[in-house]
Amino acid sequence: MKTKVRVAVAGASGYAGEELVRWLLAHPVVEIVVVTSRQHAGKRVSEIFPRFAGHPVAEAISFSEFNAIDLAQAADFVFLAVPHGVAAEFARPLLAAGARVIDLSADFRLRSADTYREFYGADHAAPELLSDAIYGLPELYREKIRPAKLVACPGCYPTSILLPLLPLLRANAIARDSVCITSLSGVTGAGRKVAAEYLFAECNESMRAYGVPKHRHLSEIEQELSLAAKEPITVQFTPHLVPLNRGIITTIYANSLDASVDKIGHILNEAYANEPFVRLLREGELPDTKNIAGTNFADLAFRFDPRTRRVILLSAIDNLAKGTASQAVQCLNLMCDLPETTGLL
Amino acid sequence: MKTKVRVAVAGASGYAGEELVRWLLAHPVVEIVVVTSRQHAGKRVSEIFPRFAGHPVAEAISFSEFNAIDLAQAADFVFLAVPHGVAAEFARPLLAAGARVIDLSADFRLRSADTYREFYGADHAAPELLSDAIYGLPELYREKIRPAKLVACPGCYPTSILLPLLPLLRANAIARDSVCITSLSGVTGAGRKVAAEYLFAECNESMRAYGVPKHRHLSEIEQELSLAAKEPITVQFTPHLVPLNRGIITTIYANSLDASVDKIGHILNEAYANEPFVRLLREGELPDTKNIAGTNFADLAFRFDPRTRRVILLSAIDNLAKGTASQAVQCLNLMCDLPETTGLL
Amino acid sequence: MKTKVRVAVAGASGYAGEELVRWLLAHPVVEIVVVTSRQHAGKRVSEIFPRFAGHPVAEAISFSEFNAIDLAQAADFVFLAVPHGVAAEFARPLLAAGARVIDLSADFRLRSADTYREFYGADHAAPELLSDAIYGLPELYREKIRPAKLVACPGCYPTSILLPLLPLLRANAIARDSVCITSLSGVTGAGRKVAAEYLFAECNESMRAYGVPKHRHLSEIEQELSLAAKEPITVQFTPHLVPLNRGIITTIYANSLDASVDKIGHILNEAYANEPFVRLLREGELPDTKNIAGTNFADLAFRFDPRTRRVILLSAIDNLAKGTASQAVQCLNLMCDLPETTGLL
Amino acid sequence: MKTKVRVAVAGASGYAGEELVRWLLAHPVVEIVVVTSRQHAGKRVSEIFPRFAGHPVAEAISFSEFNAIDLAQAADFVFLAVPHGVAAEFARPLLAAGARVIDLSADFRLRSADTYREFYGADHAAPELLSDAIYGLPELYREKIRPAKLVACPGCYPTSILLPLLPLLRANAIARDSVCITSLSGVTGAGRKVAAEYLFAECNESMRAYGVPKHRHLSEIEQELSLAAKEPITVQFTPHLVPLNRGIITTIYANSLDASVDKIGHILNEAYANEPFVRLLREGELPDTKNIAGTNFADLAFRFDPRTRRVILLSAIDNLAKGTASQAVQCLNLMCDLPETTGLL
Repeated sequence: MKTKVRVAVAGASGYAGEELVRWLLAHPVVEIVVVTSRQHAGKRVSEIFPRFAGHPVAEAISFSEFNAIDLAQAADFVFLAVPHGVAAEFARPLLAAGARVIDLSADFRLRSADTYREFYGADHAAPELLSDAIYGLPELYREKIRPAKLVACPGCYPTSILLPLLPLLRANAIARDSVCITSLSGVTGAGRKVAAEYLFAECNESMRAYGVPKHRHLSEIEQELSLAAKEPITVQFTPHLVPLNRGIITTIYANSLDASVDKIGHILNEAYANEPFVRLLREGELPDTKNIAGTNFADLAFRFDPRTRRVILLSAIDNLAKGTASQAVQCLNLMCDLPETTGLL
Repeated sequence: MKTKVRVAVAGASGYAGEELVRWLLAHPVVEIVVVTSRQHAGKRVSEIFPRFAGHPVAEAISFSEFNAIDLAQAADFVFLAVPHGVAAEFARPLLAAGARVIDLSADFRLRSADTYREFYGADHAAPELLSDAIYGLPELYREKIRPAKLVACPGCYPTSILLPLLPLLRANAIARDSVCITSLSGVTGAGRKVAAEYLFAECNESMRAYGVPKHRHLSEIEQELSLAAKEPITVQFTPHLVPLNRGIITTIYANSLDASVDKIGHILNEAYANEPFVRLLREGELPDTKNIAGTNFADLAFRFDPRTRRVILLSAIDNLAKGTASQAVQCLNLMCDLPETTGLL
Repeated sequence: MKTKVRVAVAGASGYAGEELVRWLLAHPVVEIVVVTSRQHAGKRVSEIFPRFAGHPVAEAISFSEFNAIDLAQAADFVFLAVPHGVAAEFARPLLAAGARVIDLSADFRLRSADTYREFYGADHAAPELLSDAIYGLPELYREKIRPAKLVACPGCYPTSILLPLLPLLRANAIARDSVCITSLSGVTGAGRKVAAEYLFAECNESMRAYGVPKHRHLSEIEQELSLAAKEPITVQFTPHLVPLNRGIITTIYANSLDASVDKIGHILNEAYANEPFVRLLREGELPDTKNIAGTNFADLAFRFDPRTRRVILLSAIDNLAKGTASQAVQCLNLMCDLPETTGLL
Repeated sequence: MKTKVRVAVAGASGYAGEELVRWLLAHPVVEIVVVTSRQHAGKRVSEIFPRFAGHPVAEAISFSEFNAIDLAQAADFVFLAVPHGVAAEFARPLLAAGARVIDLSADFRLRSADTYREFYGADHAAPELLSDAIYGLPELYREKIRPAKLVACPGCYPTSILLPLLPLLRANAIARDSVCITSLSGVTGAGRKVAAEYLFAECNESMRAYGVPKHRHLSEIEQELSLAAKEPITVQFTPHLVPLNRGIITTIYANSLDASVDKIGHILNEAYANEPFVRLLREGELPDTKNIAGTNFADLAFRFDPRTRRVILLSAIDNLAKGTASQAVQCLNLMCDLPETTGLL
């Protein structure tokens, strides 16, 4: 029998952490050895998350306090599901102690500490690590993720935006200053944040835009678009909160540069035909979150509007899965030399 | 005591008709004298719509079959809440018999029978009436609505789009070829259409774009924008279906032409400061459907993004109220020389 | 023009208070003169509750701190929408200063301070007032409410339970020890309580019983049943939390004592045929919260099961309306000698 | 490599069939070889159910018309996910042709054709098969399911009711004539039935009882209770429709016969401590559908009310999983001599 990959999860009390635990418990080659949470320290995982009751690991393991040395000793890989700011503080001693770190927060997504300060309003706690961190979008950085010591999992909105947009940008098929993005997110996107605005009766039968015009995720979206375009790209982005649990729908407008239906289809097909988790929808189909909820899939579609000469790109992902936790597991698989789809299909 | 305004509702079996009946039953100066529905003919209104049980009119009136002569005799105003195509057929004999008609369908919104054919896929049944019909957006055509014989109530999406966009277009504050619109609608927007795609479990925990890239409402949106701009305007528009009952959120992007926060605010304030049903939100606030559900209000906000030099316009309306039924009542009030807010606040 | 009834609302930051303000703003004979909230003191009502934006009173009035002397001077009637415990403390000086008090909390619903302590876990803050308080269920205590100085509005579950059950109990039609009650409530029933368990993603796609087997509302349910039966009555009651905003569905089982469909129908008809806000559904109909949401109606139905000789009673109310705020306004109307339906239909 | 178990699914166009396909596609030892649907014949499975896109089997297999000979030849096991009435017609030739049949409809749940006629309003199409059919509740009939040729999977409500109730009934811990059951179900429980009452806007923000007082599932509930009690048992049962996709919550009242908390706990523990899919909740916990959605678990809890001497039993299952499809797979595992949890954890 193959030795299991030993992993730890730091900060498993939020939705991202709980979802990550869900994927890891179901993973055939992974063994969760430590789970930390200051809030729940001493309590069994199955007690805090009754959905995992009966699972031998969830019954056996109790939350502990974070201790970098212990974690690095017990686990080969440590997932950080703590808030940004904290993640940077935790990563440094973990890396120093030899652990490989997969961070679900925003702390290592940006290459520039200045951009971090601009968008997150605080100095970065471990700026010296930024240059080593790999942006954990496997479809983009697969080969760099494999040997990485520190992987920064992309934000949920950026994942839904970069996947459809990057190939067209790289192919020079769209006008770079014309990109307008609207995203809709389920409420788990806000995390398990106990605030009045996320109470059931404040979100149910409610829709609203927020973070207009400069949502934090713009920083990583524009960073990755600019890297692909080899020049600074600025885009418009408006997220909306919508009353469902899971899922993101993204709709992107861009002026086409000599694009046609065939050409766009060809570009996307070249990029994703062999990707296990990106599905190009059939003609006539449009992304719907119900088709990807609870999965690691990203569903993509596009339209070309001859009236306006614009390309419309549409995508759907599960914000907690391909947008967070299962994408982190996809990175883990790459880092372990496991088949990339292990535990994800 | 003042004589009541006698009204009839043709086709009150759908959501628009039911909502219209709700507003009319509560209207202090209106008396519903006839309600028609082929499907429900012979049944009492309170039986088909148990929410109206106990209301003396809903208990007294039964649905009848449509008969133009009878309706025109019994009522001064006839609302048409029938599907497009049928509305045009009904309107002609009603008008001939002297009734004033308020149509909630799409049949009389367009000035061109050709555009109607292009977007609705059928010849118009009463093209000779198109030139007399008034587009029933009171904030735009108040004075023309007052004496009108035939009012075409705007679509729900167009109402949410034209209100924020028209003033900026008229003021030449935005680039006319740069307008990109995303709308989110609750499921009543699809009407009480018995189709698998609108079943609870197909819509709940689901989000999806539809009608991409050429939704029917584009026809009236572009017509009214072009009239305001005095040149043909083409825009991008993508509606999305979202799991709640009522409400539309619209987010519009446009490149600014020497716009600034102050200037945009001034333009919108000039347009709407005295409008009883358009609310310009305070700084820091963004539209949320829960604040306008069940009301005739349209909530508007805007942002100027200095990074992109774009204006972002945001609006919220109730698709069944300001987007359909209560806006029709607002038109009725104008046509009756009643205070415009009667029965609406 | 008639002088308006001057009212104050103490503690208008929760759902009950907000809903009460909604009903009072729409009331034709009421003028809100003071609204208090420690949390929101100094802010305009329209700022805290953007749905009221544009309403002249909501724009004019700002929240103030509670001061009994000031309130009693400014208003003839003071509504208490503060937590239990606080309400008792507020009521004493208000009554002493001459105000008539309508309390939406649980503080004055029980006649016994001992029962209060048993169910609410604290000594009552003003036990000397319990004997003067009138239980504000108009269908039961209409004549006592009219002159009352202190009215205790019933809880939402009790309203949904007492209305169908009391007539059968009084008529001796059911076995008194056989009553089993199940209720389902929307999430606003929990109030605007900022706790993790009421976050959107914890309630959406979730259902659960709670407060088993001794929910606090049992105290007033059993008190009123016992008073009607002239002997102590004990019942079974289980509330459930269900993912919608507003509404309660109650289903009651009781063994029949020589009951028949005709007899039960006769008893309920005798009790409620002339009640403006209790609707006995037609044969074949069952209560549905969507028919009463936002209204002061209670919809009742019943079935007799010949297989088990049990009566099944079913009811639907809006927990925030007939279950709280509009029922309080119904009491106010009685206390003011206004027609009972003023502002409620 | 082990040979796969070849299965066919007849009638995979509804929610039960789709969910069954979902579980079977993920099953490590099962191979779906045929899927039938008159409505979708000729279309690929991935086309009708886009959530399965990318799965090699869903891409490879197209729906065919039902043909008993072909199915029995291609598959060792045939699941019937067709309406009751049709299932009985399909089962006969399948069994004759040597297939083992797992029926998800109600057709083979009852031992008496008379009871079938009473509750389903039609003569049974294959009454001679009733005596051979095994009621597919593994926790009750595990050993009979293993060799069965024809398994009738229990209804969703009965599964949620029988699991908590049977042990107490067998132990003579409750009064047999005192059982009152209330269940709450998500809307998928109604199947993918295209009817106005199941439209999103008719179910969202709605709750309602239905099927009062004699829902069809009573027939199998009372059959199994009576078999366990060795005398005829009649119970009260009221289902409610609640606005979520998946899940059933059941709350049962019964008068205790010398029961105590310890005794009830002991009885349930004896029954289920070793069951892989029944979870007895910890003290203080109550069932919540969100903990079992998408799983084969049944969560059980109980309370003893010393005030009324009643036992309250509470359960949660996923109506489409343990209530239908995954329970059918659990039966399949037993029939194949596979570990019972294969593909289910």
